[in-house]
Amino acid sequence: MPQGQLPNAQPDDGLTTRQRRALAVLAVHTGDGKGKSTAAFGMALRAWSAGWPVGVFQFTKSPKWKVGEEAALRALGDAHAATGAGGPVTWHKMGAGWSWLRTATEDHAAAAREGWAQVRRDLASETFRLVVLDEFTYPLSNGHVDLDEVLDVLAHRPGTQHVVITGRRAPQPLLDAADLVTEMTKVKHPMDAGRKGQLGIEW
Amino acid sequence: MPQGQLPNAQPDDGLTTRQRRALAVLAVHTGDGKGKSTAAFGMALRAWSAGWPVGVFQFTKSPKWKVGEEAALRALGDAHAATGAGGPVTWHKMGAGWSWLRTATEDHAAAAREGWAQVRRDLASETFRLVVLDEFTYPLSNGHVDLDEVLDVLAHRPGTQHVVITGRRAPQPLLDAADLVTEMTKVKHPMDAGRKGQLGIEW
Repeated sequence: MPQGQLPNAQPDDGLTTRQRRALAVLAVHTGDGKGKSTAAFGMALRAWSAGWPVGVFQFTKSPKWKVGEEAALRALGDAHAATGAGGPVTWHKMGAGWSWLRTATEDHAAAAREGWAQVRRDLASETFRLVVLDEFTYPLSNGHVDLDEVLDVLAHRPGTQHVVITGRRAPQPLLDAADLVTEMTKVKHPMDAGRKGQLGIEW
Repeated sequence: MPQGQLPNAQPDDGLTTRQRRALAVLAVHTGDGKGKSTAAFGMALRAWSAGWPVGVFQFTKSPKWKVGEEAALRALGDAHAATGAGGPVTWHKMGAGWSWLRTATEDHAAAAREGWAQVRRDLASETFRLVVLDEFTYPLSNGHVDLDEVLDVLAHRPGTQHVVITGRRAPQPLLDAADLVTEMTKVKHPMDAGRKGQLGIEW
């Protein structure tokens, strides 16, 4: 998107352009195709570059998922610590046991609720400027985390905190609440032809 | 995609699993939604983490696009140079004038052809393990770069070089040749509501 492109319509919201540019965005990446999380981590690249604190909460059961993205984003966080370039990066993962808890739980529902409780605290304290809630649609759709509470917290989050939620089957009320929804549709995938997942491509 | 997930079908191609895992992937991210380039740069995070040389060729007219992603991926390349972590990153952009040329050209068709000529040379010499051809569907669909030649070069590229091509309106023969096609569909976008593009979100 070129920086100078005109919006599709002039809003009648009483805001100045500067105010409108500073509005917090709630984005949802859903659908059965690849790229939902990958695009969220790509957004984290831009956020890092803008000097924003980035927080990733990975609501996946396996700690092995997305190790490549984690290593790269952690390296960017290290670069920030060493040189001041970009912003700090924090990466929390449910599968390995949330790092702020003393003990990991085998109860996925409890783990998901504990993850959301920390997200809620971090939103209240404006810890991050971009928050990636990776695979968060699953605890929302299976009821481990209360959707109405999430929508309420997101609607009233202070400041300018951008939130990206990824995962299949995003609940309709979440899509209704989102500012930006992209559906990734699988047109063709090598695993359909029997090819296995590949290092550097799938994980 | 979890590492241990079974493929959907057993292929009858005479290859071992190890050989099949090492097959080069041609991926296309197309559609009118957001996330096509962003997901490609997310793939670059994984590739960097795997220690692969990553090459980005940005076939866009404006040198201002994707500055955030460029800064972050260049920082990862710097981290590789400084500490040996990850892999090297090379970023070429048409809009600023391809860096291997002495002079920039105002002729976009010629610039696109010069970009493709360098991609062809780099594929022949296996310079990179992941090549991102960002917004490359445009010179293909408007005929500035010959589609048949591109398909032939990609079909016969040596080694295991993964190629990701992004952009709207990918030509059907390219989709037919691709191993992995994802269509990003815009469901909802804040600019529809008159909001302007935002730093860190749009660029």
